[in-house]
Amino acid sequence: MAKIKFSSEDHIYMQVAEGIEKMISDDVLRLGDKLPSVRVLSDEYGISMGTAFQAYYHLEGKGLIESRPKSGYYVRFNQRRFPALPKTVGAFPIASDVSIKDMIATVYKDITAVDVINFAIGVPAVELLPAAKINKSVLHALRHSKDHCIGYEHFQGNIELRKQIARLAFNWGGNITPDEVVITTGCMEALVICLRAITKPGDMVVVEKPAYFGIYQAMESLGLKAVEISCDPETGPDLDNLEKILQQFPVKACLLVPNFSNPIGSCMPDENKRRLVEIITKYNTPLIEDDIYGELYFGKNRPRTCKYYDKKGLVMHCSSFSKSLAPGYRVGWIIPGKFLDTVKQIKMMHTLSSPTLTQAAMAHFLSIGRYEYHLKNLRKALHTQCLKYMQGIMQYFPTDTKMSRPQGGFVLWVELNPTLNAYKLCTEALKHHISIAPGQIFSASSHYSNYVRISYGKPWNEDVEYGLMMLGRLIKKMG
Amino acid sequence: MAKIKFSSEDHIYMQVAEGIEKMISDDVLRLGDKLPSVRVLSDEYGISMGTAFQAYYHLEGKGLIESRPKSGYYVRFNQRRFPALPKTVGAFPIASDVSIKDMIATVYKDITAVDVINFAIGVPAVELLPAAKINKSVLHALRHSKDHCIGYEHFQGNIELRKQIARLAFNWGGNITPDEVVITTGCMEALVICLRAITKPGDMVVVEKPAYFGIYQAMESLGLKAVEISCDPETGPDLDNLEKILQQFPVKACLLVPNFSNPIGSCMPDENKRRLVEIITKYNTPLIEDDIYGELYFGKNRPRTCKYYDKKGLVMHCSSFSKSLAPGYRVGWIIPGKFLDTVKQIKMMHTLSSPTLTQAAMAHFLSIGRYEYHLKNLRKALHTQCLKYMQGIMQYFPTDTKMSRPQGGFVLWVELNPTLNAYKLCTEALKHHISIAPGQIFSASSHYSNYVRISYGKPWNEDVEYGLMMLGRLIKKMG
Repeated sequence: MAKIKFSSEDHIYMQVAEGIEKMISDDVLRLGDKLPSVRVLSDEYGISMGTAFQAYYHLEGKGLIESRPKSGYYVRFNQRRFPALPKTVGAFPIASDVSIKDMIATVYKDITAVDVINFAIGVPAVELLPAAKINKSVLHALRHSKDHCIGYEHFQGNIELRKQIARLAFNWGGNITPDEVVITTGCMEALVICLRAITKPGDMVVVEKPAYFGIYQAMESLGLKAVEISCDPETGPDLDNLEKILQQFPVKACLLVPNFSNPIGSCMPDENKRRLVEIITKYNTPLIEDDIYGELYFGKNRPRTCKYYDKKGLVMHCSSFSKSLAPGYRVGWIIPGKFLDTVKQIKMMHTLSSPTLTQAAMAHFLSIGRYEYHLKNLRKALHTQCLKYMQGIMQYFPTDTKMSRPQGGFVLWVELNPTLNAYKLCTEALKHHISIAPGQIFSASSHYSNYVRISYGKPWNEDVEYGLMMLGRLIKKMG
Repeated sequence: MAKIKFSSEDHIYMQVAEGIEKMISDDVLRLGDKLPSVRVLSDEYGISMGTAFQAYYHLEGKGLIESRPKSGYYVRFNQRRFPALPKTVGAFPIASDVSIKDMIATVYKDITAVDVINFAIGVPAVELLPAAKINKSVLHALRHSKDHCIGYEHFQGNIELRKQIARLAFNWGGNITPDEVVITTGCMEALVICLRAITKPGDMVVVEKPAYFGIYQAMESLGLKAVEISCDPETGPDLDNLEKILQQFPVKACLLVPNFSNPIGSCMPDENKRRLVEIITKYNTPLIEDDIYGELYFGKNRPRTCKYYDKKGLVMHCSSFSKSLAPGYRVGWIIPGKFLDTVKQIKMMHTLSSPTLTQAAMAHFLSIGRYEYHLKNLRKALHTQCLKYMQGIMQYFPTDTKMSRPQGGFVLWVELNPTLNAYKLCTEALKHHISIAPGQIFSASSHYSNYVRISYGKPWNEDVEYGLMMLGRLIKKMG
């Protein structure tokens, strides 16, 4: 094996593991190849046996290698060999008697049910979240606030929390003051407030296709028209397409998820973000940037945001802790740029202020540096789960299955045989206590009828494997 | 003094105190009259000296009698002798360069500021709320929920809390199941969701005049037109007026506060509620009933709600704990009648679900019976504060001041000399660190420019007295 130079930034075992991972994906090490023993590895790299073991243990956790009893470690998996990516736009919709609203109601009838293997809900599993430490922050907030968090909070949000959010923006190069932040009751409220700030019923808004169904629903309830732009499964929105749309139509806003878009998992290269901001600036069209998955990257660095490239205050940056720390706390925020005053007014009209206690608890949790530490672990866990789930789907689903390759977030976008009706699959699966999100709910027009979204928020275990196996069986039966 | 027959329902000292209070208000006992000594009172009523003392102590707390050292107790105040009630509709508006939005922004710039004597904010003071006991319920929720309240709650709301809300409805004769309740992030979200469920931009909605400015703002932001109906300062909406409006205009909804309307404090007699429901049923116009002050009555019994008389599911009943238990928890609810499904859908689109922890804490607090106990104390405290503030205003404000006589809630509606501009008074008062709500913000058209709303949520103390004295001085200077 080639020697590598260790940098001081990462753990040495990680650097060794990454080197081996690269060799696997470059086909230097092939499926079935035997790896050097722990002793040999330790000699070759000049590392301790313990570190060498840790590197293999890490790769085994990701499902890339396996240990065979009394034999050693073998290459098990090469993520370059994943199935093809899903198509950009799905096949023609299969006529359906069920409205999208009813489909959503069926799938999400009871998101708190405990007897269901839930691949439909887009949140990390509770066991990945630092519950005990958040509880301590709640206690701290109860004890140290001037009125036990019983009184109203300022409608713009807890000042300590706004300071922490401003600090968090450093991660993507943001230079934000607490006065520029407005706290909301989750990211959904953030998006609804932004839409209300810059649109009127009947206005056109550009969205990705496919997109999170909550966005379509919110727009419908506000009387807005969705103009869908095509998206590349890896790099996101087609910017030439966008520019044409902005030229031709009186679009009032764009609502995009540049980092790890839901459901396709694409991440816009930073260069594309720069160009996107140039385009919306040229046409003076505000951009609502939903960055709720931005911190959940699998690569070395946090991807930038569009807000970073924004000079005119046209980008309304939205995010929350719902996907990364505490879904049930419903703490989100907006950095609304030049629309700050309007956003503050609408927030006040909407819910007066967000709850005091949950804001104070999040502020404390961030202020003692626990969020950064937690995110590091969460990213690792999600990356591992992503690879495991992909392997599971390859193993149990039919061979013509296609799949996204997310570089962050926690959902897989899976394309099945065109004859398959995903909603039917979903209702069949529910009978077996397995829930998935059918592709139909991710567009305004029931496209994607042969797609499903599978969340890998839950750590790999026997239930999960059984769930995927069962799904594979149902698909084969229906195909 | 006349003998009275004690019932077993109330404390004996309260029954004695009420008897004396009635004699004062009936002018049997007049201002300055000396009251019997504690010993004589105890002999006359056949009660202990302690109970007799408690009765006087209670009346002294309400400001109705006073003890003079080494002399005994004297009648100090007769609440029948209050100034006249404010007029139903204010004088013509004084032209103003300041928009209502800007006025609201100025008054409520920082509702969390601690160095201001705040008569503008409509909540009970934190010292009247059971903070320590609520904290215990938070701890209970953290310890006993399946996932430490970190995961999403069901979008319709915590089931235990919905059970408690259904139980609470017994107080006004309601027969509600938990399935009929939808939890919201405070009452403001409840009202906004109801409006969105049954109206479209451009629709007409009947509201009271004057009404809480948040209602006007919410309607404006939803593109709705307010049709204002006149209200009696004691009995609320003029129902003949309402029926004429429903005959003439295509009104899509009524949004009313039948119990202790904000700011005028009127309470619709139950008979009027019955007729109101008959009228809206006849015209098939849904009624959004904001009952947020319903539990804060000063009389013997809780006033009924319109929902009680509703047979067709046309009444959407809204309330919250923000005015009675924990403003900062932002826990409200809707009992939406036949619009249940629509309301559930909009709630899901709006904020997905409300925070898990605050709901679970409220559910526990109610389940152990603490809410009823707390309400009893709160009602007594608010009634006492109401009388004290009224006396203070009579003492310090000019003699031409008129004032509402609320039978519940915690705001006084005060009419000043017609030449006075309440918003100017308000900005002057802010310079002295006193905040009040100017009348202009309680109508769509800057009427009520010589009115102010004064909240008596804060217990009477030297600061409060200084604040009212200072206000009186400013009014006299400006007059």
